Amino acid sequence: MQYTKCWLDWKEIPKEQKRKCYYRPVLLACGPVAATAGEEYCISMGEMLGREISLLEMADGCEPAVFLEVDGAMQTGARNEALAEQTFAIREEGDSIRITGRSEEALLQGVFAFTRMVSLAQLDEKLPFQCIPSMPLRMMDHWDDMDGSIERGYSGRSFFYDNYEILYNERTEMYVRLMASIGVNAIVINNVNVHERETYLITDAYLAQVKKYADLFARYGIRLFMCVNFAAPMQLGNIPVSDPLDPDVIAWWQDAVKHVYEVIPEFGGFLVKADSEGRPGPITYGRTQADGANMLARALAPYGGILIWRCFVYNCRQDWRDYKTDRARAAYDHFIELDGEFDDNVILQIKNGPMDFQVREPVSPLFGGLKRTNMMIELQIAQEYTGQQIDLCYLIPMWKEILSFDTYACGEGTPVEQVVSGRSYAQVNCGMAAVINTGDDENWTGNDLAGANLYGFGRLAMDPSLTAEEIASEWCRLNLSQSDEVAKVVVPMLMGSWATYENYSSPLGIGWMVSPPTHYGPDVDGFEYDRWGTYHRSDLHGIGVDRTDAGTGYVNQYNEPWRSIYGKMDTCPEELLLFFHHVPYTYVLKTGKTLIQHIYDTHFEGVEEVEEMQRQWASLEGKIPDRAFRCVSERFERQLANAIEWRDRINTYFYRKCGIGDEKGRKIY
Amino acid sequence: MQYTKCWLDWKEIPKEQKRKCYYRPVLLACGPVAATAGEEYCISMGEMLGREISLLEMADGCEPAVFLEVDGAMQTGARNEALAEQTFAIREEGDSIRITGRSEEALLQGVFAFTRMVSLAQLDEKLPFQCIPSMPLRMMDHWDDMDGSIERGYSGRSFFYDNYEILYNERTEMYVRLMASIGVNAIVINNVNVHERETYLITDAYLAQVKKYADLFARYGIRLFMCVNFAAPMQLGNIPVSDPLDPDVIAWWQDAVKHVYEVIPEFGGFLVKADSEGRPGPITYGRTQADGANMLARALAPYGGILIWRCFVYNCRQDWRDYKTDRARAAYDHFIELDGEFDDNVILQIKNGPMDFQVREPVSPLFGGLKRTNMMIELQIAQEYTGQQIDLCYLIPMWKEILSFDTYACGEGTPVEQVVSGRSYAQVNCGMAAVINTGDDENWTGNDLAGANLYGFGRLAMDPSLTAEEIASEWCRLNLSQSDEVAKVVVPMLMGSWATYENYSSPLGIGWMVSPPTHYGPDVDGFEYDRWGTYHRSDLHGIGVDRTDAGTGYVNQYNEPWRSIYGKMDTCPEELLLFFHHVPYTYVLKTGKTLIQHIYDTHFEGVEEVEEMQRQWASLEGKIPDRAFRCVSERFERQLANAIEWRDRINTYFYRKCGIGDEKGRKIY
Repeated sequence: MQYTKCWLDWKEIPKEQKRKCYYRPVLLACGPVAATAGEEYCISMGEMLGREISLLEMADGCEPAVFLEVDGAMQTGARNEALAEQTFAIREEGDSIRITGRSEEALLQGVFAFTRMVSLAQLDEKLPFQCIPSMPLRMMDHWDDMDGSIERGYSGRSFFYDNYEILYNERTEMYVRLMASIGVNAIVINNVNVHERETYLITDAYLAQVKKYADLFARYGIRLFMCVNFAAPMQLGNIPVSDPLDPDVIAWWQDAVKHVYEVIPEFGGFLVKADSEGRPGPITYGRTQADGANMLARALAPYGGILIWRCFVYNCRQDWRDYKTDRARAAYDHFIELDGEFDDNVILQIKNGPMDFQVREPVSPLFGGLKRTNMMIELQIAQEYTGQQIDLCYLIPMWKEILSFDTYACGEGTPVEQVVSGRSYAQVNCGMAAVINTGDDENWTGNDLAGANLYGFGRLAMDPSLTAEEIASEWCRLNLSQSDEVAKVVVPMLMGSWATYENYSSPLGIGWMVSPPTHYGPDVDGFEYDRWGTYHRSDLHGIGVDRTDAGTGYVNQYNEPWRSIYGKMDTCPEELLLFFHHVPYTYVLKTGKTLIQHIYDTHFEGVEEVEEMQRQWASLEGKIPDRAFRCVSERFERQLANAIEWRDRINTYFYRKCGIGDEKGRKIY
Repeated sequence: MQYTKCWLDWKEIPKEQKRKCYYRPVLLACGPVAATAGEEYCISMGEMLGREISLLEMADGCEPAVFLEVDGAMQTGARNEALAEQTFAIREEGDSIRITGRSEEALLQGVFAFTRMVSLAQLDEKLPFQCIPSMPLRMMDHWDDMDGSIERGYSGRSFFYDNYEILYNERTEMYVRLMASIGVNAIVINNVNVHERETYLITDAYLAQVKKYADLFARYGIRLFMCVNFAAPMQLGNIPVSDPLDPDVIAWWQDAVKHVYEVIPEFGGFLVKADSEGRPGPITYGRTQADGANMLARALAPYGGILIWRCFVYNCRQDWRDYKTDRARAAYDHFIELDGEFDDNVILQIKNGPMDFQVREPVSPLFGGLKRTNMMIELQIAQEYTGQQIDLCYLIPMWKEILSFDTYACGEGTPVEQVVSGRSYAQVNCGMAAVINTGDDENWTGNDLAGANLYGFGRLAMDPSLTAEEIASEWCRLNLSQSDEVAKVVVPMLMGSWATYENYSSPLGIGWMVSPPTHYGPDVDGFEYDRWGTYHRSDLHGIGVDRTDAGTGYVNQYNEPWRSIYGKMDTCPEELLLFFHHVPYTYVLKTGKTLIQHIYDTHFEGVEEVEEMQRQWASLEGKIPDRAFRCVSERFERQLANAIEWRDRINTYFYRKCGIGDEKGRKIY
């Protein structure tokens, strides 16, 4: 079993940066997580200093030292106690440094932040430093199944499961260290699509093994969550229904949860996908989503558990002939009426957009709609629709756009970030979750560069004010090379990659057009006559879905001014034009180009940009680790083939449909 | 294990039809197949007479009797000894009847023919009767895999294999009786795509089990064939190559074949799919198809074995951007130059059309091209592209058209039937093969009505002069009901079903447009940008593939006058128009309709025809066995849904593309 250490693969720092105090860590706190903080300090700083480091006993005259301490009375300025608990500070005291956490967990975060700053030589610039995490919950969702496969996994097999056994080995520990080091504090260990065998995860069939994970996670300040099958009472309890208002069902869940907490007192809670894509749920019994969620939440509440309920509920058996039903409307339509009905320990997990992790979507209107409901945003680090870790697509710029999108929920200046961090409505149970992109590939993420998305998600959830460039630069320096020369190549490459992927794939917000079985590669009509509610409606005159008042009315789910802005073709942001409007090929965009010429141009450009990235990457040979160089080189080859296929299929498809040639006379087949 | 007896489910005949001699069978021949003939007589006639029948000993004064005899000196008029051997006659002698076979196998065929005539009350009309089979080889190809699945199987699982074991049970015997009763004399027991485990079928891992099949088949006059993996010497023999000219390879095959014949002396031979769709073959070693086939044929020759070599060789990694390569050309291009180079015990197995069992294709030009090569036609009873035994598609009319297609190979009047029966070039190793449509469904063929295709293939291979109506009527009376009332509903339904399927699926010979993974249901662009060489090339102006001189030149593979007829849009048979030409939507057909209006009309009609079939079928309730009634009713429901989906997707697709509305203003989405 080989695996890299990613951003924890510390390199020795230059001699002139080695402060005396670094060699002298003093742990002033006790408890298991504080002990982890001490260990992590010694591991990381030992590697950076080029010699073994161990914790010193506190004694007079041991300074200069790096003090690792917990101060429960620390003044943080955090807006609530939950975030205060997660706050840490790093400051200099003479030649010494003091890393102070309000809690043990915060101290551990402080140590990771400190070691990162040391490695990046940022200490002078950053200290004194205080961090109040932005998002209370920073969660990773694993779509790992117990057979060892990963739904939408592009980095090998699961390192959690194989053949219905739970794995536990050195890699597990490395994984947890990586997660903790970027601020993750919650991990869901199984797929939201809970299959037959996985339903048993909450039973004695597996709980003892799960507890080993929970214990390990706990030592790193991370809570373990599980996905449950809403029909578990039927499958496991022999109860004829899973009606959330049925007393037997309620009692069954209470017992099940009680037992989970008996085995795992620090258990985090459940994540549930119900009434979605064939999963069971409360609708079967004429109950609301709130009935379902609250029932489970109440079983969890006595133990401090949290119930996370996904809003990805839509009709996945739509008739393509039906122009009225609009999948984009579904989440809002299902949940808006229930605002205020969910218990305090329920969080609704809302995908960033109304469809499903496309390369470009508007922001879900639920963020601007719900006001009395705890919310988390769900992002997807796994590049299901954005190149599957073959193609490079650095997602931080997308996520930054989403987080800064102004919902106007409380008037101007209510960005998504504020809503999901709990600031808008003074909520505690809030945050960011993401479908993780890891697997048992040596480099964890298939494409080494896809590690930047994993790293970046954690960093962004801690501090959304970080720029995408800063995160790219951090990741590049920690993972590939400290050299500016390398960063000068890699950072712009990462920064431009989303636009490139968008250029050669589906245009202007329409999404889909991917191969239905794999979601990789083009198939323009692949979903067009299918049941998934994902259509482009193109004909010889134009393309796009009319979601205005005259169409599906989806625009009305937004607060003003978005409703008006999106509602008119000339004010609609052009990158979303085809999401909101059916537009003639001859429509002239703000660039002065027609829609069809824009499609041709971006698709030719997309391929050229991949070729340029490939050239740029080739220039790094010898300047970065050889394994990473070769891995990414091979991925770029496949990306180029994919980009060419996209370019040619999209261009040919639309040329055949509209008959309008490329102004520049380039080859369209 | 439940299964029906299909056309061997004899009913008691009316009293007035029970001739005295029927009760008194006298077997005048010995040998195992003659014994089978005696048994089959007793089983069938016993059921028809309503009491047990047993063979009488020959004695003076036993007449009237039915004499079952073998006469090796019988005058047949057959054109060669191989067919003479298969000839039988049935004649009256006073009150007695004499069933005479030139061989035991022919006698068995005579008994089956006799019992069928008795059941159908045809004796008066048909006797005296002589049958010289038209096709020397009448072969069933099973695409069964040893895991128990069937490639392109639509009738349940394999009854030959399960979980890599060979099955042998009562059903096996019923199967062989069914096959023998329709004249089948060769069965290939495994899939042409020979996977890893199936490669071992010719070894001691399985031969003892295969021998049980071979013995059973032999008792019914059927020879057993197997598909082999051309790379078997590498997989099984540890030889680094499978080059057909390599001495080690040659020796390996000689040994392997020798051993097969040691175990199974009556073994028929091999069927090979080489150099096709990823299968290994001689091309890898720079050898010709003839090199590959002859090498295997020479290993088989000492034992009288036959080597059947498929001509389904084409580039299945084509680039959709490539308008010059034409899959339709491939078989002819690969094999025409090799005419005369194949050994006498080699037969080329040629699919009926140049593509792959589409609902409408021209006849393969190879039948008119090869003149010094043994040929078999390969048909597909399994409805891979014609509704998968959900939709009704009676294929006998299609096969009749194909067999009567005049190749002009030896001047006017050289139909395919003459070529593949060996008459054109005085060949012995020739015939018809078909991919069978059976599985372990209770009714064998998924849809009961699909049994007519299975039955009809055998009948047609024995006697291509039978009309499709005659076969339909026979099948209907033997399987559903003897009543004229039922036949009056079922026979026209069968006869019209191919046209109906064609009406609602892909138009005018263009084929494909099916869902790529399943080959069922519509996906107009499903194969359009894929690697399989199957394109419709439609754009806003028109649709179709130019295969004239100006296009791919495929028409030149035909003898005149076809070359000229197909080459021009106005002489090309319109049902094949889009196969040969790229045609504007506004092109006016001989009906006076434009192409696009023809597409709309046929698709609306196709659905209406299915609705009419459904109504007709409903009228049979209570008049046919309930199980069959319910089975087919359920299939018609699914067929209607499928037809509607085809209608709407095809109409919408082309309406969106050309913008020309339906003249009749019907709903297009």
